[in-house]
Amino acid sequence: MKVGIVGATGYGGLELIRFLHNHPAVEQIDLFTSSEEGVQFSSKFGHLVKIADTPLQKIAYDTLAKFDVVFTSTPSGVTSELLPPLVGKGPKLIDLSGDFRLKDLASYETWYGKKAAPYHSVQQSVYGLTEWNTELIRQATLVANPGCYPTAVLLSLLPLVKERLIDPSFLVIDAKSGISGAGNKPSQTTHFSETNENFSIYKVNTHQHIPEIEQALSMFAQADTAITFNTHLVPMTRGILATSYAPVMQGITEAQLISCLQATYENHPFVRIVTDASSLGTNRVKGSNYCDILVKVDSRTNRATIVSVIDNLVKGAAGQAIQNMNVQFDLPQTTGLDVVPFFI
Amino acid sequence: MKVGIVGATGYGGLELIRFLHNHPAVEQIDLFTSSEEGVQFSSKFGHLVKIADTPLQKIAYDTLAKFDVVFTSTPSGVTSELLPPLVGKGPKLIDLSGDFRLKDLASYETWYGKKAAPYHSVQQSVYGLTEWNTELIRQATLVANPGCYPTAVLLSLLPLVKERLIDPSFLVIDAKSGISGAGNKPSQTTHFSETNENFSIYKVNTHQHIPEIEQALSMFAQADTAITFNTHLVPMTRGILATSYAPVMQGITEAQLISCLQATYENHPFVRIVTDASSLGTNRVKGSNYCDILVKVDSRTNRATIVSVIDNLVKGAAGQAIQNMNVQFDLPQTTGLDVVPFFI
Amino acid sequence: MKVGIVGATGYGGLELIRFLHNHPAVEQIDLFTSSEEGVQFSSKFGHLVKIADTPLQKIAYDTLAKFDVVFTSTPSGVTSELLPPLVGKGPKLIDLSGDFRLKDLASYETWYGKKAAPYHSVQQSVYGLTEWNTELIRQATLVANPGCYPTAVLLSLLPLVKERLIDPSFLVIDAKSGISGAGNKPSQTTHFSETNENFSIYKVNTHQHIPEIEQALSMFAQADTAITFNTHLVPMTRGILATSYAPVMQGITEAQLISCLQATYENHPFVRIVTDASSLGTNRVKGSNYCDILVKVDSRTNRATIVSVIDNLVKGAAGQAIQNMNVQFDLPQTTGLDVVPFFI
Amino acid sequence: MKVGIVGATGYGGLELIRFLHNHPAVEQIDLFTSSEEGVQFSSKFGHLVKIADTPLQKIAYDTLAKFDVVFTSTPSGVTSELLPPLVGKGPKLIDLSGDFRLKDLASYETWYGKKAAPYHSVQQSVYGLTEWNTELIRQATLVANPGCYPTAVLLSLLPLVKERLIDPSFLVIDAKSGISGAGNKPSQTTHFSETNENFSIYKVNTHQHIPEIEQALSMFAQADTAITFNTHLVPMTRGILATSYAPVMQGITEAQLISCLQATYENHPFVRIVTDASSLGTNRVKGSNYCDILVKVDSRTNRATIVSVIDNLVKGAAGQAIQNMNVQFDLPQTTGLDVVPFFI
Repeated sequence: MKVGIVGATGYGGLELIRFLHNHPAVEQIDLFTSSEEGVQFSSKFGHLVKIADTPLQKIAYDTLAKFDVVFTSTPSGVTSELLPPLVGKGPKLIDLSGDFRLKDLASYETWYGKKAAPYHSVQQSVYGLTEWNTELIRQATLVANPGCYPTAVLLSLLPLVKERLIDPSFLVIDAKSGISGAGNKPSQTTHFSETNENFSIYKVNTHQHIPEIEQALSMFAQADTAITFNTHLVPMTRGILATSYAPVMQGITEAQLISCLQATYENHPFVRIVTDASSLGTNRVKGSNYCDILVKVDSRTNRATIVSVIDNLVKGAAGQAIQNMNVQFDLPQTTGLDVVPFFI
Repeated sequence: MKVGIVGATGYGGLELIRFLHNHPAVEQIDLFTSSEEGVQFSSKFGHLVKIADTPLQKIAYDTLAKFDVVFTSTPSGVTSELLPPLVGKGPKLIDLSGDFRLKDLASYETWYGKKAAPYHSVQQSVYGLTEWNTELIRQATLVANPGCYPTAVLLSLLPLVKERLIDPSFLVIDAKSGISGAGNKPSQTTHFSETNENFSIYKVNTHQHIPEIEQALSMFAQADTAITFNTHLVPMTRGILATSYAPVMQGITEAQLISCLQATYENHPFVRIVTDASSLGTNRVKGSNYCDILVKVDSRTNRATIVSVIDNLVKGAAGQAIQNMNVQFDLPQTTGLDVVPFFI
Repeated sequence: MKVGIVGATGYGGLELIRFLHNHPAVEQIDLFTSSEEGVQFSSKFGHLVKIADTPLQKIAYDTLAKFDVVFTSTPSGVTSELLPPLVGKGPKLIDLSGDFRLKDLASYETWYGKKAAPYHSVQQSVYGLTEWNTELIRQATLVANPGCYPTAVLLSLLPLVKERLIDPSFLVIDAKSGISGAGNKPSQTTHFSETNENFSIYKVNTHQHIPEIEQALSMFAQADTAITFNTHLVPMTRGILATSYAPVMQGITEAQLISCLQATYENHPFVRIVTDASSLGTNRVKGSNYCDILVKVDSRTNRATIVSVIDNLVKGAAGQAIQNMNVQFDLPQTTGLDVVPFFI
Repeated sequence: MKVGIVGATGYGGLELIRFLHNHPAVEQIDLFTSSEEGVQFSSKFGHLVKIADTPLQKIAYDTLAKFDVVFTSTPSGVTSELLPPLVGKGPKLIDLSGDFRLKDLASYETWYGKKAAPYHSVQQSVYGLTEWNTELIRQATLVANPGCYPTAVLLSLLPLVKERLIDPSFLVIDAKSGISGAGNKPSQTTHFSETNENFSIYKVNTHQHIPEIEQALSMFAQADTAITFNTHLVPMTRGILATSYAPVMQGITEAQLISCLQATYENHPFVRIVTDASSLGTNRVKGSNYCDILVKVDSRTNRATIVSVIDNLVKGAAGQAIQNMNVQFDLPQTTGLDVVPFFI
């Protein structure tokens, strides 16, 4: 397989390279950029010396059309223009940006503040939450890879909402992310001295992943609901932990919630249900494609606390993108992704 | 004023020393310990050379009785025995542990798993949430200084619950703390390599600060309610951020919530209502006695998001303890506490 | 005293505010900036709400001339033009930038790559290493406040070099700094995700503090020597630790080195000689104006290891600047600076 | 190949598992411990659920003798007794502790303060600095895997000392390590709140890796010299950066130093000479088996600054151990180790 990566210099791009370098079915990786044509990639990223010494290439349709797969890992508003002409021209397209995730174009324009991609392309795209959309992904030409927060949230909530074990009308989701989620562009918000030793909330009630989560709750669990969703920055590089709260339906027990999650993910290699812990942290999944989920019911309030952790750059971005590629090419989902989490 | 500190080697004790060293009304600070009698304090804590070179003293009632104030900053289960004989014997007693906070002894024993302090002493003690209990604190002999999480949570929620601007029957509180909250005793949970770059949830739905928050909601805001409360560890040393969620009462606006908070704390020097920010972080209050509060109403769900930040070791422990001492001695509350937050 | 701060939005400026806010002799602090005239300071820095709510003012000579002291904390190349017209016009001038430190203008232009300040102003300025230049500082109109690295290095080496207890012809100085030394302007080098969990060397053998250290070794210890000096970035915000190596002169013992340091700093409140430790870290001095120094002789090689720690923003910048102001106004050096180090 | 790991619960053991899990020639990994026989490994380390769910086994000679390879990753003083009876009994033995590194037993006892391993076993063991001892490692039954600091230092210094391009009689080595080097056992020194935001020097001039480095300089570069060597703790988990200083021999240029390094490591996949950078950090090699080296000559002093970075747990421990195993089994050195550094 020949793979092209557009937006290779971002953190999503770098993680794609990290995993694809060891992917047994990938024989060639070409890197594309909008502005640094000809620059040797490893001269920008010293950790890739002897690994990715190839020059960055100019983005050109003819060139891109020749690949088996093209990953796009660009800021929002780029692939809405870049990808539509490539759809159906040969390569499988896997877009890591938010441009093709929202089926409702008006919603995209409201939450992203940008012009939406063409209607037809958006409808053609398949939402790439691998465990929940496997069959459509297999046939898709254009995969809209999920956002990092939605991945963590949906994998933990969808089974419970779908089976109506928890009440979807009062979902409170409190999410926390490492700083790498903000990308590689320097800003005051990501300046070390002001980020280090600082835990903060941002985009209060206005994060653009809200409509994505709501759309998926509707799509996969038939729940049309307005969620409360907030996001926080943790002074660490990688990892998302999402803590979700919902009333438990009358008569439902903690054991039933656990069973539901276990049954749902029984045959899914990357989702692990944590049953014996009183704590759960992001270091359980660091550097890997796992999503670990813990659920507890508080008998004092009859509310469930549902916790999930992922590595935002892996299961929340590059890892899930490769998992989707594996599905599209009928490879085992774990191909190239079977790595042990770092822990420390 | 002569001040004694029992449990000086813990982080609460160290912070008491940091502030009392510059307190204009304090002329002597003696340090007490259960096990290292005679050891020069600065030989254990090099940062205190030339500042606190005095030897640690043995805990003895006769000695303690001669101080104007005795702060106790010990693990739970210690002062329940140590302090009752000292009540009324002379010194003002300010206890930073949890032993005198819960008026319901059975509740203490359930949540702390330890024997409660004697009934009479517990009823005599005054809950030291300075802004909400000033008059009783002024007259108190024994102050039960609030827990770090309850301080952050209550300062932000009490005004809104008391005025019934938000619905106390569905309070979800998601709290996050720096690691110093776990104290100075090494453990696997606080071992650098496993704590650094790891964000985790712990004591899911079972933190002993739950009954303390509920008691104060009842006491100060006449709301008898069971809260949902969870705690997380942030890979940083200092700081608590609590994100609370509640339905807004019918017809109430964000402006009314803000006004309520502003009116409540108008004359309170250490509480600041944040009105112009879309983000809020712990570095705004680092090293200081401030509590900063932000409230936003999400019109999509008609739920409020209430965020507060404190330094867990200052307003959440030693700072509030000294604030209470100031109240007891009719000093301005800011005496010795008027420091600028570190920010970086 | 009325104090003006030019460059208040930088970290040096913020630290000046932090300490001057509690300085008993300072009654007014005005903040100046080149570009944000009229902006309320605390609207930029939320931690200063209720503390520094004043508007930023435009830099104007007439205004600045009316202050008792003007601190300038600006990037290099700014005060070389700004300050000369103010010299002798009234205010004591304390410059935290590098523009007036090097007496040799050609050296400045080589190492800084910028045009030097006028010859006359540079010669008039006094190098503000408080402990070593007290008398000249007392009379100075323009103080060139030392660089952060030179402060840590010189305080530890000058006594030993001056007394020729160590050999100045083979000085190797390996220095490490927290990221705040790079200032508040975002860049790839200070971007959290690439700085966190990364220890790096930078400006190998080419740091502009080299000539400053060499000049001071010559000026205060009569040693004309070329040093080896390197600088590293530590993934933390505050603190400098400098490890210096030099051959010990024939027949000199570790005890003599220690005695020399103790004798030199006997009456200096901010320098502490560490005698009983096998380790030394930056947290001993965090947030304070202390410089702690440890010296050990390795009998295997007859070389000395000399270690010193400071808070780069305090003794390495704002703290020493205020210490110099105290000297200029015949106040005790500790005025406004007598704070306990944070430790944690 | 069947592999046994003794000391699996330490960080060296965990890293062995991380890499061996993906090693194509390894079909079975058994885990041994001195104290937790029967405990399911993943119940202790949640990140290994679905990956290493096997029970910990009791250490027994008969069992260990049946493996193809046995890695021992234990505190010093354990394998000096454990391994001698196993030598020649079947398995290749690769010891990650310091017990077999020093050929001079008296030196071991002086620096480690423990009883040395039997003379015969020590002499039989082969020092496992892969790039410098390949042939002996290939034939070895017992490999003494190098220490983390010595690996970083020796790979950078040996070529230059061996060719006498730098003067071995004045070597100053200033090394810095992440906290994981201290292992997984909690202590005050590794307690998060006292380690975070603290850079410190420890074991001044007395680190037990000094004789190991000196022995290798003698063994591989015929230089009998006493080095100056110091170690520092960096508030991060992984990574070592060593900055070494030495006079450059008369007439030797920077270009010659670079050429020497390049020529030495031309065919060695894990050593990379950095030629175009003015900075070098540990994140270039994080999580990988690479060692990156930078050399600069300061023409002002005619001294060389030689910088090297490794991941202390990989090239400094588990990675190099597996690299040695690959050599012993005539596999390409990169087998199972060909991973892309994390960078962030």
